[in-house]
Amino acid sequence: MYKILKSDGVSNLFDRFEAQDGRCSFCIGGISCQLCSNGPCRIKKGADRGACGIDADAMAMRNFLLKNIMGAATYTFHAKEVAKTLRATARGKTPFRVKDEEKLKDIAEEFGITGDNLLEGVAEVFSSLIKTDSDDILKSVEIFAPATRIKLWKELGILPGGPQEEMIDALSSCLTNVDGDYVSLAKKAMRLSIATIYGSQIPLELGQDILFGTPMPHEVDTDLGIIDPEYVNIVVNGHEPFVGAALIEAARSDEIQKIARDAGAKGLRIIGSIETGQELIQRFEVDDVFAGLTGNWISIEPMLATGCVDLLAMDMNCSPPAMGIYQDRYSTTLVSVSKLVAVPGMKDQIGYNPEEVRSQAGELIGIAIENFKRRRDKPGQPVARRQKAVAGISVEAILEVLGGSLDPLLDAIRDGAIRGVVALVSCTTLKNGPQDSLTVAVAKELIKRDILVIAAGCGNAALQVAGLETPEAKDLAGDGLRTVCEKLGIPPVLSFGTCTDTGRIAMLVTAVADALGVDPSDLPVAVTAPEYMEQKATIDAVFAVAFGLYTHVSPTPPVTGADRLVKLLTEDVEELTGGKIAVGDDPVEIVDGIEEHIKKKRSKLGI
Amino acid sequence: MYKILKSDGVSNLFDRFEAQDGRCSFCIGGISCQLCSNGPCRIKKGADRGACGIDADAMAMRNFLLKNIMGAATYTFHAKEVAKTLRATARGKTPFRVKDEEKLKDIAEEFGITGDNLLEGVAEVFSSLIKTDSDDILKSVEIFAPATRIKLWKELGILPGGPQEEMIDALSSCLTNVDGDYVSLAKKAMRLSIATIYGSQIPLELGQDILFGTPMPHEVDTDLGIIDPEYVNIVVNGHEPFVGAALIEAARSDEIQKIARDAGAKGLRIIGSIETGQELIQRFEVDDVFAGLTGNWISIEPMLATGCVDLLAMDMNCSPPAMGIYQDRYSTTLVSVSKLVAVPGMKDQIGYNPEEVRSQAGELIGIAIENFKRRRDKPGQPVARRQKAVAGISVEAILEVLGGSLDPLLDAIRDGAIRGVVALVSCTTLKNGPQDSLTVAVAKELIKRDILVIAAGCGNAALQVAGLETPEAKDLAGDGLRTVCEKLGIPPVLSFGTCTDTGRIAMLVTAVADALGVDPSDLPVAVTAPEYMEQKATIDAVFAVAFGLYTHVSPTPPVTGADRLVKLLTEDVEELTGGKIAVGDDPVEIVDGIEEHIKKKRSKLGI
Repeated sequence: MYKILKSDGVSNLFDRFEAQDGRCSFCIGGISCQLCSNGPCRIKKGADRGACGIDADAMAMRNFLLKNIMGAATYTFHAKEVAKTLRATARGKTPFRVKDEEKLKDIAEEFGITGDNLLEGVAEVFSSLIKTDSDDILKSVEIFAPATRIKLWKELGILPGGPQEEMIDALSSCLTNVDGDYVSLAKKAMRLSIATIYGSQIPLELGQDILFGTPMPHEVDTDLGIIDPEYVNIVVNGHEPFVGAALIEAARSDEIQKIARDAGAKGLRIIGSIETGQELIQRFEVDDVFAGLTGNWISIEPMLATGCVDLLAMDMNCSPPAMGIYQDRYSTTLVSVSKLVAVPGMKDQIGYNPEEVRSQAGELIGIAIENFKRRRDKPGQPVARRQKAVAGISVEAILEVLGGSLDPLLDAIRDGAIRGVVALVSCTTLKNGPQDSLTVAVAKELIKRDILVIAAGCGNAALQVAGLETPEAKDLAGDGLRTVCEKLGIPPVLSFGTCTDTGRIAMLVTAVADALGVDPSDLPVAVTAPEYMEQKATIDAVFAVAFGLYTHVSPTPPVTGADRLVKLLTEDVEELTGGKIAVGDDPVEIVDGIEEHIKKKRSKLGI
Repeated sequence: MYKILKSDGVSNLFDRFEAQDGRCSFCIGGISCQLCSNGPCRIKKGADRGACGIDADAMAMRNFLLKNIMGAATYTFHAKEVAKTLRATARGKTPFRVKDEEKLKDIAEEFGITGDNLLEGVAEVFSSLIKTDSDDILKSVEIFAPATRIKLWKELGILPGGPQEEMIDALSSCLTNVDGDYVSLAKKAMRLSIATIYGSQIPLELGQDILFGTPMPHEVDTDLGIIDPEYVNIVVNGHEPFVGAALIEAARSDEIQKIARDAGAKGLRIIGSIETGQELIQRFEVDDVFAGLTGNWISIEPMLATGCVDLLAMDMNCSPPAMGIYQDRYSTTLVSVSKLVAVPGMKDQIGYNPEEVRSQAGELIGIAIENFKRRRDKPGQPVARRQKAVAGISVEAILEVLGGSLDPLLDAIRDGAIRGVVALVSCTTLKNGPQDSLTVAVAKELIKRDILVIAAGCGNAALQVAGLETPEAKDLAGDGLRTVCEKLGIPPVLSFGTCTDTGRIAMLVTAVADALGVDPSDLPVAVTAPEYMEQKATIDAVFAVAFGLYTHVSPTPPVTGADRLVKLLTEDVEELTGGKIAVGDDPVEIVDGIEEHIKKKRSKLGI
């Protein structure tokens, strides 16, 4: 597809990335500040502080905290939309209904919700979690976090309130002349990350499970080849499943399919892209209406360039801003379905509203069919590549696969068939070579060494498209892991969903730690983000450190201009939380570091 | 004081500012982005977009919106502290009590609050304003904003909910690949600014009025000369009045004064610095315990270098981060009194808590007295400069001065004695020459042309220290304004408080507009920020534009690399809101622009 874009002379990520060569070394090092009118300032020879007096470490950490806050905000926005959707559904005002009654009851019980309308109760509780005062303690931390961590976080002063108020505190701390201490700022980042995971991420995934079903393993289709030019193709892109779910529901009606056929198409299909697609394939069966997942965000521009997409419905995030120019060139229509998202030139903005989503879906289908009529006679440039994957792994799914108890997994870890578990939670970036190359290389290296991989985020899509989430991929694993995969019928890389499922992964780690009676930091477990891209990834990485995990991140975050900060994040923080950041861009070296950590933890556990 | 700092070889703002010479032109133009790992990116020849595809205009506007959000957060944090203080006071748990019963009743009535405990009701309403959903409409906008504006804001889609949720929306919009449209981003900035002014600023000042009294004119002392080396000197610095008010209350006891005298001092004094000081001088009489206001933030390091400050109690913002090294060198002690503020090396952090502020004040006094004992025998380097000023102007104060009606003021405007009114709401920066030089020059130029100046923010302190807020300053005014000043016994520059009083100024403009039956954009009124420095100033400026006012800002904000954005902010937005941004660094040219605008508006009103 890149060749097509290149020969068409259309602006695309690959060329734009190259055009930015000669990047600013101050910005790369995190030691450039643009906040106030006394600046912009840079830490350099003869200027070891910004004009205000801030040092390199605090400048870099403040810049980094600001990014974390943005990620926290976006997760929290999503969580608010879930709470609103639950509430509207409880009142019978959406096309959705409770799919996982069991989970609804469980959650209601955990939060002490009673009454006639448990769903409305859960919606209210989720909403109040988000808004919990930052002087209070977030209830969901108390319910879901390991007791050992709660104690430690309290000692460190990072046991948080709700994400919304913690964000205000953190943001205010980033103002010029407020917090100039890098250690204090780093602790605020950890505090915010805990609030975000427990106050936004976990509730939002629980809420989506209630509405759309808890992920259970099933086979899905991925890659650009799932797009058939002869159908009306609606691609749902972003991070939220709501509009996509409403579209799938609508598109399953004979009436809609007939309208599409009357327009000259074989029918109408809903196709998932990036994390919206990932949320959907985790929970929905792929069939003649829902086609699967195209890929991660680097695939968006190439996907549009096929000329086979009638409508790109863009929710909450991950809609690159140059796509407007693709509309006429490749016969597609861009519509934002979030009040947040705007792409210059897009045709419309229909902000998601749970009470109106049924009619919104109808409107979107109308726009797509009109687009199909316009492109009907133009040949598209479909892509042949398709890849099967097993999607839909959750804590519950693992328990089901294991026969109701974690013991078979724990036994495999104890006896060394599985040396350890690594959560690969990543975006995708061109910084580390061609799309997803490092992600795939790291995952292969991990499973080769009998380390089970749990995948989430755009990195998950990378591994799906690369074929690593199939049962057959066991042949790429070491002997121990391969045997376990064969026994349980699972792939060596498990699809745990989106970046938003970091919380779900924390729940799994907590379950394992509890089962062994240890703290998460004692487990032979690590995290890798081989291709982190944006601000949601950074808050997840900070959480992993606060949670006590060895956390590999690549590309190296913009802190290298700040020596004491680098030492804090990569060494000293381990004394505080048991976790730390590791960097590196070579797959073998990355996994060497992880394996060494796993060995240390196994040895400490005496296994 | 600079000479002392220089000869002592101590890091200071003046030298650090110079050391940053050779500033990055990309950062100055707003066309550098460090958000994601595909970057950092810069708009340059051969790269008209960032790697993600964002264009120069959206990049610069997004950078600018991020700054605005930080300012909004800080105002909102302050507003939350006010709500908590009101609530704790209502429950009898603070040393504070209701000083302005009338205002409490008025506010209760406006919001429909009834019951036994109006104060607790107001606290709850203020708290709920902050948290209002961004899909709802903020009630305080409906109550306090001009009807013409509400209608317009609704049409533009910028009639907001509460500041906290609007911030989450705006922050999420700033994430990589969410909002790539500079017009959409600019509208989000305006929307957030309205939420901040009506949801945070106005309630917080109303709440402080209830507790500490509505500002009424009285004479105060300013400048560094108010510090007497022979007293135990506690300087309260930041933006919130609570700890300072509790300290003044405590210091007025004979017991505390005796302890200070026993330690060898003449007594113990509380001294205001920056906006904390400004909040206090607006409402408290200067006497032998409360000494007045030292100056604005550029004065902080010089103030510490006098060696006469025993304790710097640092609340919420404006504590430059290099001050830790001043402690031993100049025999002072730094203590943060906010959970937000951290300065490397500070001796303690005692986060303000309304229910504990009485004992917190006692603790601070103890620390200050210990510091005095250590410095007792070291000669300080006191400064001789002192300046009288009239502080304490509010809408109510103006009405009182005018005999209960705005008519005398309106008549003076109608007959041209006063040509117009300019709100000078500014910080202070070294970017425009020596401390406050441009602020003072602009104010002088304005009053010379019979334009009444209403001052707020650090710029207000500049004009106080410059002697422009004395009745005698009338002699610097034009004939018309001088006559009005003589008649009413007021200075030509009126002290309206801190940057937080932007909302109060909006209330005054609203009152004038309502009295004339026109929209604020029709008035011969403008805003100038001759020395804006940080992120609270930018959100205030954006609000002024949304409010329909001609808004001069200097230094030029970092948007000059984005042509269409500059055109939007300085030209096209006038079609939408009636307001616009003007730039320029020459006092005569700045006032030429303002005067031309005022003439245009006078002519349109037929006066």
